[in-house]
Amino acid sequence: MSSKNKPRNAFYAQSGGVTAVINASAAGLIETARANKGGIGRVYAGRDGIIGALTEDLIDTSKEPIRNIRKLRHTPSGAFGSCRYKLKSLEENRREYERLMAVFSAHDIGYFFYNGGGDSADTCLKISQLSKQLGFPIQAIHIPKTVDNDLPVTDNCPGFGSVAKYIAVSTREASFDVASMCRTSTRVFVLEVMGRHAGWIAAAGGLAADADTDLPILILFPEVPFNRRRFMAAVKRKVREYGYVSVVVSEGVRDREGKFLSDQGLVDAFGHAQLGGVAPVIANMIKEDLGFKYHWGVADYMQRAARHIASKTDVEQAWALGEAAVNLALAGRNAVMPTIRRVSNKPYRWKIGAAPLGRVANVEKMMPANFISKDGFGITARCRTYLEPLILGEDYPPYRNGMPDYVRLRNMPVKKKLATGFKV
Amino acid sequence: MSSKNKPRNAFYAQSGGVTAVINASAAGLIETARANKGGIGRVYAGRDGIIGALTEDLIDTSKEPIRNIRKLRHTPSGAFGSCRYKLKSLEENRREYERLMAVFSAHDIGYFFYNGGGDSADTCLKISQLSKQLGFPIQAIHIPKTVDNDLPVTDNCPGFGSVAKYIAVSTREASFDVASMCRTSTRVFVLEVMGRHAGWIAAAGGLAADADTDLPILILFPEVPFNRRRFMAAVKRKVREYGYVSVVVSEGVRDREGKFLSDQGLVDAFGHAQLGGVAPVIANMIKEDLGFKYHWGVADYMQRAARHIASKTDVEQAWALGEAAVNLALAGRNAVMPTIRRVSNKPYRWKIGAAPLGRVANVEKMMPANFISKDGFGITARCRTYLEPLILGEDYPPYRNGMPDYVRLRNMPVKKKLATGFKV
Repeated sequence: MSSKNKPRNAFYAQSGGVTAVINASAAGLIETARANKGGIGRVYAGRDGIIGALTEDLIDTSKEPIRNIRKLRHTPSGAFGSCRYKLKSLEENRREYERLMAVFSAHDIGYFFYNGGGDSADTCLKISQLSKQLGFPIQAIHIPKTVDNDLPVTDNCPGFGSVAKYIAVSTREASFDVASMCRTSTRVFVLEVMGRHAGWIAAAGGLAADADTDLPILILFPEVPFNRRRFMAAVKRKVREYGYVSVVVSEGVRDREGKFLSDQGLVDAFGHAQLGGVAPVIANMIKEDLGFKYHWGVADYMQRAARHIASKTDVEQAWALGEAAVNLALAGRNAVMPTIRRVSNKPYRWKIGAAPLGRVANVEKMMPANFISKDGFGITARCRTYLEPLILGEDYPPYRNGMPDYVRLRNMPVKKKLATGFKV
Repeated sequence: MSSKNKPRNAFYAQSGGVTAVINASAAGLIETARANKGGIGRVYAGRDGIIGALTEDLIDTSKEPIRNIRKLRHTPSGAFGSCRYKLKSLEENRREYERLMAVFSAHDIGYFFYNGGGDSADTCLKISQLSKQLGFPIQAIHIPKTVDNDLPVTDNCPGFGSVAKYIAVSTREASFDVASMCRTSTRVFVLEVMGRHAGWIAAAGGLAADADTDLPILILFPEVPFNRRRFMAAVKRKVREYGYVSVVVSEGVRDREGKFLSDQGLVDAFGHAQLGGVAPVIANMIKEDLGFKYHWGVADYMQRAARHIASKTDVEQAWALGEAAVNLALAGRNAVMPTIRRVSNKPYRWKIGAAPLGRVANVEKMMPANFISKDGFGITARCRTYLEPLILGEDYPPYRNGMPDYVRLRNMPVKKKLATGFKV
């Protein structure tokens, strides 16, 4: 346990799919903790996320020069490693939780910062509750992160704004390209984007067009069951009017039976199943039904790693939430998540708030129905009002020899203290 | 015909696949022509490329405010429209050439500027020759443009440097992403890039790693027949050493029988043929042979339209070649293409040169064998020395409300003068 003279250490881990700005949250957190050494001792990061805690594979961030920590603000991905590893419930795997407590106790960790999505908010809550039961109280604070933008309470989730900007910009650029070619060549461009359950990222494709730049964009949301006949009619109308069309399709689009469109039972010449994306499926359907020449792209990891075109708003919010997590800890808060509170739309103003984890864990924020246009293929003015501020501003990384200068940390290990290992 | 007092007009057309910087060449050309009104009259652009000339569908660029012309420098795509339309040989379709001459004569066009790749260099040469034969001499000047970088004589082709930068940056960013996830999730990222015949764009993926940033990258070139066993051994080695690997695969990769790898005879559940890309094919093979979890992306039009991350060197060269085309015309040159001449590598210095079209037309510049590493999966130091200068510098477009402010021209038509139409 901590004494008044020696502040307890903090544990920080990145969880789930990484983003262009999760390291900005890490920077905000570590820089703020270093500025408050009277309140927080060292910040230990989990190597590869929570797995680093389970295996006592901790990184001593205090060994990292401050200039490297500052560079995290403009470096995409997870600097300490992340993982897809969901802790089971306490009943199912009490052993894991006890191991976490043993590691935290051995390293005098009094603060648990978990940077992730809905699952990690739930883990965070459990750790707070369990540590109290076990008589080793830990302040557990969740820092929101997810390109899927599906956490409740907060105005938006860091990571999303930058993906939105990337998709909006790429869709505009590709639409300009198709517009140039449509007289004799490509008439349809299909772009596949992330978002298995919620159409937030697909919606960002709608920002490619605006009052100054009229472009024909059709969006296929996971929220709207795919209707081939209605979609083809919409494609035909756009091509008749503009000569071309861009289609932004969510990876999570399903047919009326709830089956993913990407799951077309493709087999190669040898009868082996092939896992394809949904973009080629849509493109092929259009070719089959309407005969239009097409191109298709799949943005995949490029979209969430694209720090080179990150939203300045997103970067600032990500950093501020890392900072806020430390401030909440220093204020004695527990089982809480710092949030973004929208104060006004135009100009966009926001403040940091806080939400109890009980309100966050296991709640998925879906696209409101009134964000999707009546025909199901576009965004409404209300959706635009929500989205537009999130892509505001550019925050370019520094370049060296034509390439972005992203940092890689030394990630020096903390000496192990436990005699026992742990198999994940 | 022109008198000494009234300079003859110019025709400008964009040809083939558009790029992030072909409009920069248009800007260089139109701005320079406007500054030399004593030598060149109006610049008429072909709507949708050469089709605009055949159908007498000309755009009067003199009606466009100069601020819009200047904005072309930062606007991707083809502002006047492009087309995939190759003129047949004179013997096969004399009618087309005669029509062009009729249109050019009617509008007193004495300068033919054609902005494209190898095919358009050939067309340009023919127009120069034929116009002489027909007693209506036209100075025909070709401005190089192609993301494929396959034109001879010139150091590189405008459009390529920006695609190269996009691919290098995206590969670096995605590699950072996979590195974060590889402990429990994705180990292989596959990125499909353009380049059906030559591996220049795929080679740019090699720039993702450099002396400061060591990353495991494997490249599949169209020049190297795909050998599944050797490739899998290389993937396995990289994953063993780094924990993950990024694969940059050219759309034009073929097997030893010369068959495109993307042409896998895929059929859907109903037996319909499906046209897929090569990225999912490679990814599925890796899963099948090695069991690694993968992600794959297809950069498609995003790569060549990505003006937001254009190479400054590329933009400057594209503009300078448009300017040089006018200067060559004013100097009385004919059947010529302005080129980039590399003066030094470090620092990169270049000058404008000129090549007779006879040396350019129908010559494809392939990757030199000594640009590909011995194992066939990487680039050599020599290749790096060639490529690195081409991605130097950033040249960001202006943004408005978080989105790049790309211009769309008014494209006012020139009044038709011919009684006859033309069916393309």
